[in-house]
Amino acid sequence: MSQLKKASLDEKFSLIHEHWRPKVVAELNVQELKLVKFAGVFPWHHHEHEDELFLVWRGEMRIEFRDKSITLRGEFCMVPRGVEHRTIAEAEAEGLVFEPTQTRNTGNIVDEAFTAPNGVSI
Amino acid sequence: MSQLKKASLDEKFSLIHEHWRPKVVAELNVQELKLVKFAGVFPWHHHEHEDELFLVWRGEMRIEFRDKSITLRGEFCMVPRGVEHRTIAEAEAEGLVFEPTQTRNTGNIVDEAFTAPNGVSI
Repeated sequence: MSQLKKASLDEKFSLIHEHWRPKVVAELNVQELKLVKFAGVFPWHHHEHEDELFLVWRGEMRIEFRDKSITLRGEFCMVPRGVEHRTIAEAEAEGLVFEPTQTRNTGNIVDEAFTAPNGVSI
Repeated sequence: MSQLKKASLDEKFSLIHEHWRPKVVAELNVQELKLVKFAGVFPWHHHEHEDELFLVWRGEMRIEFRDKSITLRGEFCMVPRGVEHRTIAEAEAEGLVFEPTQTRNTGNIVDEAFTAPNGVSI
């Protein structure tokens, strides 16, 4: 049972030195818990088949939809599949993302600057 | 898009007035994010088909396995399917649980005091 171990969110976040590139910290039931540092403006996109949960752990992050905007601070929001959105952080924020394994961070688009590799664990 | 909304962990936890009875706060990809208040000793059990992630948000909670014990405080632990475990909190603690929809909290056992109804949302 040596695979049973715990991890600290603070410690894991301290290992992340880039923005918008999710790091996998747990995999379960073909889903992943990822940690992300947000800063700036992420491109508009949607996920065809994946619902996505954002929980802002530190700082403030805004999710913009085409018809509304939701600001998260110690709060969470589930973005259903198919719903176009973008994320914005005026100052660096830290968040948890829960979504299926192999979800591309930019969903239906590929962006040279923002599309991140999948399956990068810390 | 009126279904798009945020929720605060603190507010949701303030609505929970019982121990060991998970409340669903988000459903996505046939998984649920649940909030639980822990206090005391939960029965030994395992989940045949479900991996289970615990993240302790406030306070301290211990997960006991047959050959080791892991104490969580601002930390998380993934319990793979099939692994027998029980959870213990000396004082009340608050945690997030991520697992498939319809996962029975007591897994392979049914306990009059501890088995909780599924799908109770707050």
